[in-house]
Amino acid sequence: MSRNAEIICVGTELLLGNIVNTNARDLSVMLSELGINVFWQTVVGDNPDRLKAAVDLARSRADLIITTGGLGPTCDDLTRQTVCGAFGMEMAFDERAKRDLDAFFRIGKGGAMTENNLSQCWLPVGCTPFYNTCGTAPGCGFTAPDGTVVVILPGPPKEMNAMMRNGGIDFLRSVSDEPIFSRNIMTFGMGESAIESLLREEMNALTNPTLAPYAKEGEVRLRITAKAANRAQADAMIAPVFADVQRVLGDKIYGCDEIDSLEKAVLTALKARGETFAAAESCTGGLIAKRITDLPGSSAVFRGGVTVYTNDVKMYLGVKRETLDAYTAVSREVAVELAENVRKNLGADYGIGVTGVAGPDSDGVHCVGTVFVSLADADTTYVRALQLGEKSDRSRIRTLSANHALDMLRRRLSGLPVAP
Amino acid sequence: MSRNAEIICVGTELLLGNIVNTNARDLSVMLSELGINVFWQTVVGDNPDRLKAAVDLARSRADLIITTGGLGPTCDDLTRQTVCGAFGMEMAFDERAKRDLDAFFRIGKGGAMTENNLSQCWLPVGCTPFYNTCGTAPGCGFTAPDGTVVVILPGPPKEMNAMMRNGGIDFLRSVSDEPIFSRNIMTFGMGESAIESLLREEMNALTNPTLAPYAKEGEVRLRITAKAANRAQADAMIAPVFADVQRVLGDKIYGCDEIDSLEKAVLTALKARGETFAAAESCTGGLIAKRITDLPGSSAVFRGGVTVYTNDVKMYLGVKRETLDAYTAVSREVAVELAENVRKNLGADYGIGVTGVAGPDSDGVHCVGTVFVSLADADTTYVRALQLGEKSDRSRIRTLSANHALDMLRRRLSGLPVAP
Repeated sequence: MSRNAEIICVGTELLLGNIVNTNARDLSVMLSELGINVFWQTVVGDNPDRLKAAVDLARSRADLIITTGGLGPTCDDLTRQTVCGAFGMEMAFDERAKRDLDAFFRIGKGGAMTENNLSQCWLPVGCTPFYNTCGTAPGCGFTAPDGTVVVILPGPPKEMNAMMRNGGIDFLRSVSDEPIFSRNIMTFGMGESAIESLLREEMNALTNPTLAPYAKEGEVRLRITAKAANRAQADAMIAPVFADVQRVLGDKIYGCDEIDSLEKAVLTALKARGETFAAAESCTGGLIAKRITDLPGSSAVFRGGVTVYTNDVKMYLGVKRETLDAYTAVSREVAVELAENVRKNLGADYGIGVTGVAGPDSDGVHCVGTVFVSLADADTTYVRALQLGEKSDRSRIRTLSANHALDMLRRRLSGLPVAP
Repeated sequence: MSRNAEIICVGTELLLGNIVNTNARDLSVMLSELGINVFWQTVVGDNPDRLKAAVDLARSRADLIITTGGLGPTCDDLTRQTVCGAFGMEMAFDERAKRDLDAFFRIGKGGAMTENNLSQCWLPVGCTPFYNTCGTAPGCGFTAPDGTVVVILPGPPKEMNAMMRNGGIDFLRSVSDEPIFSRNIMTFGMGESAIESLLREEMNALTNPTLAPYAKEGEVRLRITAKAANRAQADAMIAPVFADVQRVLGDKIYGCDEIDSLEKAVLTALKARGETFAAAESCTGGLIAKRITDLPGSSAVFRGGVTVYTNDVKMYLGVKRETLDAYTAVSREVAVELAENVRKNLGADYGIGVTGVAGPDSDGVHCVGTVFVSLADADTTYVRALQLGEKSDRSRIRTLSANHALDMLRRRLSGLPVAP
């Protein structure tokens, strides 16, 4: 049988909405890659009674329970005691955890160690400890007397992720079977219901593998999922569906699997060609630069960027005052000069220029959502004039504008029409 | 009695980890501000049986149920039918929703309308409809025959948030009482367990209001929460606790309530002084520009920025080749020239310069996490030399570096020591 998992995230800060629950997302990705079905994600506060109730419920409907949060040194961190209590596990003081704590504070990353930190060193007897490589609270995994597999992880996302990589995933692999394998197809330029109506017959007909679309801001992704004995068998089942999707969606597809963002597609294509780009951003305000430099290795393909948030700074980059006076800052002409000047001045093979009205206020001339995106190479300068909708919010307009700029570059690099 | 709510987010994409659940976070914030306790957040897939089970469980432990997701036009969108079925609500075709759909597609934002879109127009009889101002699927609120209050919302975060603002919150206010009121205090520069040990006695002693810390990447926030008849009464209860926290944490506090980020603190202080800044970013790669321009009104205080991702681009901004040769790009000296040149060249009152090694690879000279952050005004240039930890990941190093740069600026604007 394959494991059915429930993820229980503990933290009143989640119920108050102080933080977004990235742990549930990150764990779900890891579990799906391990072939473990996640049927439930539950969030409870730092309350022992409700946490106990959540654990008892999870035992009744899942055979793998993963908790995050509530392991810290503060007085409302009660997960370890409550979960181990629910499964009748005894606790013991872990000397290695104590040594890690001493070392953590000795290298001075957390200030002086306060006594309350020692509470983190108690772990269930007979567990597989997961020591914390970038924080203080250790986690652990164990099989409870009733056969339920339990994994206890810290709440800070960086600590949780590091701990899964360093022990947690190995522990889970040892308790899972009948894996599922997926391939993801990323598209840009077509809406979800249009794609779904093109592929609905195939989606309905398929059982294993399955095909499902999901919308991401300004993009649609398709996931093909197969249950199979191994990756090779799954790939053979997935391949024909993958080919059908490619036939239907064609050059709307910008990548698959690890190429899961337009910036990764651009980074990969530029690296392969040994070329570089630069970006002059007005309404996107550094978002394109931020997104490309989020990626390790981006320094090989990104020369740099200029956030041209005022006319003076646009002119500092070389945009002509006459152009600004004649056409205003939000114009096809200024987008073109931004792209061409940032390419030339920053010594890149390609230049991107973005100017528009992200809102919430209009510039008095154009309505919110009016954006001009330009791409310049050595010979040609392309422009897309976008109307992203007066109803769209600032964040969506900025994201879509950056998506269009990156899409123009990836289409240029693939020899496709850039500005249809 | 005060309402106890459960949020049920529907979507296999959540269980597969394809997207992060911002809806649960955003709804929790709105509910807490309405004085509605959220004791549970549950995520289920696009599976009618498990959704039915989740709804039945929620009825047994909450008297307000809010669902998100599964309202779309595609065949796996089953929330409306399943939830209304569980509560025995009849459905009727809503003509206004149909007219909205026609208009939505007529203005051409979604391409041609496909027949499957009409499935979205069925709503429970007698409900309060929430029409969708930026998408296609309407939501609704109703009181079920058993007295449970039910709110059904779409999954796309922008649509969900807009729908809550345009009808959802009013509907919930009409069913809630005994409100809770909170104040949030934002700090930068001290760790969570250090703060908790400074304030533990007070935290343990308090019952109403309560005081609780929570860590955000590189920051610690404190939330004071009071149950009271009205805002004025709550403010009177919160004030003395607020004063105690200010006394203990002093200038580590950079803002409270709506000033919930360092960039907002900087934006507010600069606006009040009628001053501006500019940023030259190497390892943060546009993150500071992106964060400040995320904020409406930032054009009044942000002149622009340069992402100086190569030495050529650093020199384009005016950094001397000799400085780069003598000290390398990752140095106090280059940080200083970046801050001073970006201030001068972009015509700002303050200039920020950031250079460092965000990793994962070292530059061969400095270890990962070595970052120099500089702030220049007309007379003085300040520098912080940071060692953010070789164990830290790229994203954390970039975030902390941007936090330090913004913290230096906000301390300078408040007349506090900038680089202790």
